[in-house]
Amino acid sequence: MSWMTYIGLAAATITTISHTPQVIKSWKTKKTKDVSLLMYIALATGVFLWLLYGVLIKDLPLILANSITFIFTFSTLVLKIKYG
Amino acid sequence: MSWMTYIGLAAATITTISHTPQVIKSWKTKKTKDVSLLMYIALATGVFLWLLYGVLIKDLPLILANSITFIFTFSTLVLKIKYG
Repeated sequence: MSWMTYIGLAAATITTISHTPQVIKSWKTKKTKDVSLLMYIALATGVFLWLLYGVLIKDLPLILANSITFIFTFSTLVLKIKYG
Repeated sequence: MSWMTYIGLAAATITTISHTPQVIKSWKTKKTKDVSLLMYIALATGVFLWLLYGVLIKDLPLILANSITFIFTFSTLVLKIKYG
């Protein structure tokens, strides 16, 4: 693999796992007042469409990365709706 | 263009603009206590690497989407550091 591919893989890995700290924080503190509801509605929708697109074009990296990201962003959305 | 391409474009557009409501909310309320610092450090880093990867492989959609996303996520990170 080219060194450029490693940068792409690092980018994909970091952006995918970047959403876990918000889920953990919201889960622990039960406070989500400063988190934007609109952002998480849009983000979860967009990531779901990326996942759908990945399934349609049968692209494994797209499917994997967006499945994981969807779980985290949707969880944050549920916590935001729950805690307000 | 195939209808599948439109789903990909919708996914890219929605995930790119999804980060604006958080910047606007944090800017207006001056409160970011419930927002995860670690998430925005990781997300801004990951998006910057996507942008770098786009430049390296000369991919215009990657460059465009990640330039815009970087501006929004980095802005939220700055506001989070400022307001705590």
